[in-house]
Amino acid sequence: MKIGVFGTSMVGQAISGKLVELGHDVMVGTRDVAKTQANIEPHPYGFPAFSVWQKEHASVKLGTFADAAKHGEVVFNATNGTGSLEALKLAGESNLNGKILVDIANPLDFSQGNPPSLSVSNTDSLGEQIQRAYPNTKVVKTLNTVTAFLMVNPSLVANADHTLFVCGNDADAKAQVTEWLKGWFGWKDVIDLGDITNARGTEQVLPIWIRLFGVLGTGMFNFKIVK
Amino acid sequence: MKIGVFGTSMVGQAISGKLVELGHDVMVGTRDVAKTQANIEPHPYGFPAFSVWQKEHASVKLGTFADAAKHGEVVFNATNGTGSLEALKLAGESNLNGKILVDIANPLDFSQGNPPSLSVSNTDSLGEQIQRAYPNTKVVKTLNTVTAFLMVNPSLVANADHTLFVCGNDADAKAQVTEWLKGWFGWKDVIDLGDITNARGTEQVLPIWIRLFGVLGTGMFNFKIVK
Repeated sequence: MKIGVFGTSMVGQAISGKLVELGHDVMVGTRDVAKTQANIEPHPYGFPAFSVWQKEHASVKLGTFADAAKHGEVVFNATNGTGSLEALKLAGESNLNGKILVDIANPLDFSQGNPPSLSVSNTDSLGEQIQRAYPNTKVVKTLNTVTAFLMVNPSLVANADHTLFVCGNDADAKAQVTEWLKGWFGWKDVIDLGDITNARGTEQVLPIWIRLFGVLGTGMFNFKIVK
Repeated sequence: MKIGVFGTSMVGQAISGKLVELGHDVMVGTRDVAKTQANIEPHPYGFPAFSVWQKEHASVKLGTFADAAKHGEVVFNATNGTGSLEALKLAGESNLNGKILVDIANPLDFSQGNPPSLSVSNTDSLGEQIQRAYPNTKVVKTLNTVTAFLMVNPSLVANADHTLFVCGNDADAKAQVTEWLKGWFGWKDVIDLGDITNARGTEQVLPIWIRLFGVLGTGMFNFKIVK
């Protein structure tokens, strides 16, 4: 399947790496291709520059956001949440219309230091902002409550016995994404919260996620809903 | 132990009912004692009016917020979050000074309908507001991420194999409250998130909690941190 992935950082690398491993035709989108290719410095968080990572994942293509959007029958938004709307604008509405957009981004605002706050929350969410801006795109919010490598390999923690959430306005798109989450990545427990306004719920999980990351000393954890 | 419990609703009933069962000397605080005693209408959510409930729990005393604060060596804040600061003002700072205040309240704002938003969130929290307003009280935020009856009986779900969070500025107070949570109520997995600013994390769990309550059709669930 032809898939576009917006974002070259840890989440973009995890998603696109897994998708090519599964045999998909993946193009990663970035703002400035030449700049992304020229950068070889590891990120302060420890993951490699995309250009370095790509040498080990040569089948992953790189293009502009518009190139990746045109390429993808489905698109994953793995950009930093505070830059997502700008990235989507560069991708172009006509390149996104009618497609499923799997929105993984969180609107984390590090401008006041760590832990970050959310740049949109409570009475709105990034997922809703994206859906409003692209009414003909089927936005499905998911994967944003777990760390990058767990997104595509949930069995790294507790034999995948933990929970993922999806929400979005289009029932068929949600069902399709849920099938991918289970079939491609190995998720077992996926809870459909309802329409895209429920992104307010999952994005507001990030404040406690980040604090738990600090306390537990690892991002390799998740929430399991027990009842 | 002499304990004050602010709030006559479901949470106040669950906490005070359990505490008297354990042999403690409990006074529940309310704004208007006569009004609370006169009201016999069940709450729309299905729990009984305090006056009706109290007939089955005759050892639970009722007084003003100030009476309950004076009575308690420790105080539980089980008021509605949007009314907590007003309740504490009525209780009186001098009646709270030096004491542990276990803050269970969530600042849920139902003014725009259901699901509620939070009246304070993201860059502040109710827990912090209370701690700032009562600097000589040891505020420990906990129990606010589970439904009332689970607070005092976590084994009602999955043999208590799920997680509770505490945060607060006073390490001794947190250790004491954690001991009570385990010894009195039966909590097994209690994670200390750090100082009271971490109440931003646990209070912002409510938006997804409320949505899960809708999807699961029960409040008898909890988050388990798996790693």
